[in-house]
Amino acid sequence: MKWTISNSLPISFDIVRSRNVLSLKELDIARKIIIIDHNVYELYKDNIPCDSTINILTINCTEATKSLDNAQLILNFFETKNILRRTEPVIAIGGGVLLDIVGFCCSIYRRGIPYIRIPTTLLSIIDASIGIKTSINHFDRRNRLGSFYPPLMSILDTALIKTQTAREISNGVAEILKLSIVVDETLFELLENNPKVVMEDKFQGDLADQIIDIAINSMISELNSNLWEQQLQRSVDFGHSFSPIIEMKNVCDMLHGEAVILDCLLSSCISFNRNLISQDTLYRIFNLIKSYNLPTYHADFYNIDLLNKALTDTMKHRDNNQFLPIPTSIGGCIIINDLTQDELLLSTITMRQLNNKI
Amino acid sequence: MKWTISNSLPISFDIVRSRNVLSLKELDIARKIIIIDHNVYELYKDNIPCDSTINILTINCTEATKSLDNAQLILNFFETKNILRRTEPVIAIGGGVLLDIVGFCCSIYRRGIPYIRIPTTLLSIIDASIGIKTSINHFDRRNRLGSFYPPLMSILDTALIKTQTAREISNGVAEILKLSIVVDETLFELLENNPKVVMEDKFQGDLADQIIDIAINSMISELNSNLWEQQLQRSVDFGHSFSPIIEMKNVCDMLHGEAVILDCLLSSCISFNRNLISQDTLYRIFNLIKSYNLPTYHADFYNIDLLNKALTDTMKHRDNNQFLPIPTSIGGCIIINDLTQDELLLSTITMRQLNNKI
Repeated sequence: MKWTISNSLPISFDIVRSRNVLSLKELDIARKIIIIDHNVYELYKDNIPCDSTINILTINCTEATKSLDNAQLILNFFETKNILRRTEPVIAIGGGVLLDIVGFCCSIYRRGIPYIRIPTTLLSIIDASIGIKTSINHFDRRNRLGSFYPPLMSILDTALIKTQTAREISNGVAEILKLSIVVDETLFELLENNPKVVMEDKFQGDLADQIIDIAINSMISELNSNLWEQQLQRSVDFGHSFSPIIEMKNVCDMLHGEAVILDCLLSSCISFNRNLISQDTLYRIFNLIKSYNLPTYHADFYNIDLLNKALTDTMKHRDNNQFLPIPTSIGGCIIINDLTQDELLLSTITMRQLNNKI
Repeated sequence: MKWTISNSLPISFDIVRSRNVLSLKELDIARKIIIIDHNVYELYKDNIPCDSTINILTINCTEATKSLDNAQLILNFFETKNILRRTEPVIAIGGGVLLDIVGFCCSIYRRGIPYIRIPTTLLSIIDASIGIKTSINHFDRRNRLGSFYPPLMSILDTALIKTQTAREISNGVAEILKLSIVVDETLFELLENNPKVVMEDKFQGDLADQIIDIAINSMISELNSNLWEQQLQRSVDFGHSFSPIIEMKNVCDMLHGEAVILDCLLSSCISFNRNLISQDTLYRIFNLIKSYNLPTYHADFYNIDLLNKALTDTMKHRDNNQFLPIPTSIGGCIIINDLTQDELLLSTITMRQLNNKI
């Protein structure tokens, strides 16, 4: 005897731009269950309506507290509020850490309740809002527990970026730079030509909007056909091969985008040493990173033992393959699976020389 | 600006019958990560191969320990074993509790790693092996956390039932009775005509196999089109409306099937009081339950306050609807949404009278 269970789960959600999203006026929900980053709440509490339909839980969100303990606080809030299974979507307001952790909680509470993402940082607007990934850190590893679970929708209000610090905005730019290097030359050139304008203006205005729109378009075209990561060779993993362990090791003083961009630079050095990109291209990448005040060196990225450990750990996530994306031009990349120890060592030296020379 | 993320996740897995499944000979996996119920392991350890490719974690599995703590033990085992993301499926061996908890862990570790279900009880052969639900108990509630996550396959070896106690086998029969009452008259008659044969033979032999096959067919036809429970009106929820809270309250001395069948009987009394089934049909249901040595009364099922609390809690899971399946004949049912307090009270009295009369 043999039986086959077979079916298909269709998913679809919109990512929309909005203004004054925190007024919640566009959300037609009778009772609003809101999980919001504590800092965002302090900044914007006067913008959020306050009446008997609103139920707010504020959460301290950092990579260090993207934990099962924090997830349990959120789950406990769901339980005490007696959330219905389908018609009371949770409203998640915050950066990537908050969106990831709330998404994870929503994915496992009663095997899944709906939720809406309202990102409040540049990084989460172009990154955490787009795909269907949720997660928490565990076992001292980034995103070790999680799920693929789409939101009902993501609502982007770029005015919220204004209250971010310059360093936080650079942190968000890092993921845009990453995309531009491996999949979008136009985006790269736009960033290359306008660092001062967009940074001084805190990523407000038409040019910033244009950059964000292009970044989202690029992200969607990379992610949409591979939402559940059936394919483990992903260009968007550029910058995410060595960085996860190093980011966790420096969890109190290195931001996600900073770890990612250092990894992008090291990976670009690997390309350069394989003669896949010219010295000129490598310099352009290096200069672009610097022009957005992102780091180009860190002792951990010269530490060959740590880099090896990090790659080995990442390989477990790629089913024992390196699947390392490295650029072949501005806007192009290949995925390699044969990086050697010598090459890695040489590339750390290249990265060091680059920092000393320029 | 507006973007749409849209895609579809196809799932498909086989449920196969096998003999001597614990030899693991049919599983072509280089390194075998096995999570097995402690009691099953003690009974069958001589049947399981022992070599360097085998990695075993035994887990104490009861409803009382279907917990986040136990889940963390399993996740920790995955982490220390450095499981690959795709090609080292976890092998789960045990009853429904073990399959649910291991399935849940596999669904959240690295956002999902593959697993194989090997059920060892009659109940899990016809129930937990079929759908795509995983879960743990939390907040003193049954299956409050969980996911929809299909296994790679389920492998059924009915010879394993032999070592179950008569009470445990009756526990499994309860879910078959449930199905037979609301969706399959043939199955009901087969059960009605053969209680002694199948029970004395510990559910071995052709007749038992036939019953199991029909039960699985019925379960699949009810579940397959609604795997993710987009539709909250489900006939398989018969027996699962009042029972969850009562089962958790009596977690140390009431088995799942016992709670379910008591709920089935109460729900049948509701049908009878609505003149949807005849007294003769109600008696047939009552007698069938008794003939498999399953309980037909329990003080908690006469406790109107507890029953109300239980239904209210279940309604949260049905988006504030009762969606209570009740039989309209042997093999037929409707879903009602307008049960009154008086009706419920009357039905507890009917259930009491039934026990006193027959």
